[in-house]
Amino acid sequence: MTHDTDDAGAASDVAVDFGEDGLVPAVAQDADSGTVLMLAYVTPEALERTRETGFAHYYSRSREELWKKGTSSGHLQRIVEVRVDCDADTLLYLVEQEGGACHTGHRSCFYRTVDGEHVGERVFDPDEVY
Amino acid sequence: MTHDTDDAGAASDVAVDFGEDGLVPAVAQDADSGTVLMLAYVTPEALERTRETGFAHYYSRSREELWKKGTSSGHLQRIVEVRVDCDADTLLYLVEQEGGACHTGHRSCFYRTVDGEHVGERVFDPDEVY
Repeated sequence: MTHDTDDAGAASDVAVDFGEDGLVPAVAQDADSGTVLMLAYVTPEALERTRETGFAHYYSRSREELWKKGTSSGHLQRIVEVRVDCDADTLLYLVEQEGGACHTGHRSCFYRTVDGEHVGERVFDPDEVY
Repeated sequence: MTHDTDDAGAASDVAVDFGEDGLVPAVAQDADSGTVLMLAYVTPEALERTRETGFAHYYSRSREELWKKGTSSGHLQRIVEVRVDCDADTLLYLVEQEGGACHTGHRSCFYRTVDGEHVGERVFDPDEVY
């Protein structure tokens, strides 16, 4: 991918639009293989922690709490780069994924087609991890 | 990616969970390069049209209407595969992208880092397209 910085001056942070619910979706992508690993939601605090620590943080809507990916499984996501889309209301985490991103044991949460065909690679046994 | 179909029987459609608002996020990814192109939202009707026609359809929350990507720009997304995540509440469209996905003229909507660095490739002039 080309890095064609437009302006001569120093780049400044993009103001992320967290909207009414204070959340934006974040897509996690394997920085090496390009595999889309998962989608989860991010609060301002989760983004701040992600940028400060260099590890992917999200906000669990079901548990209603900040969540460092891999805390219980060990399957951390080390941040390579955080991107933001044109409308600044979606994030893209480029990561180095430890183990698998999916609690089902797959490398990616997108291991099925909508037709129900199993296309994803299983990389760990969830019974041994959780 | 390995295709390790578990069951001997025919695969059946995954029931997508459209939630209370009747929408799921859909990530569009270039099937060849792996570039994450954009994220938009999908209604049951948009998914049905996508599967029927083989071209990506979304639902525009601002215009409140079904939207065939590329109708005005010509930058259509031909569907290679539609995947669904473990919770069945997010879609992944693997596509062949005509031109660029982003209305700013970039190949991908994720053309900036959150630090404001310009990292994306510009592939068309929006003034000539829209």
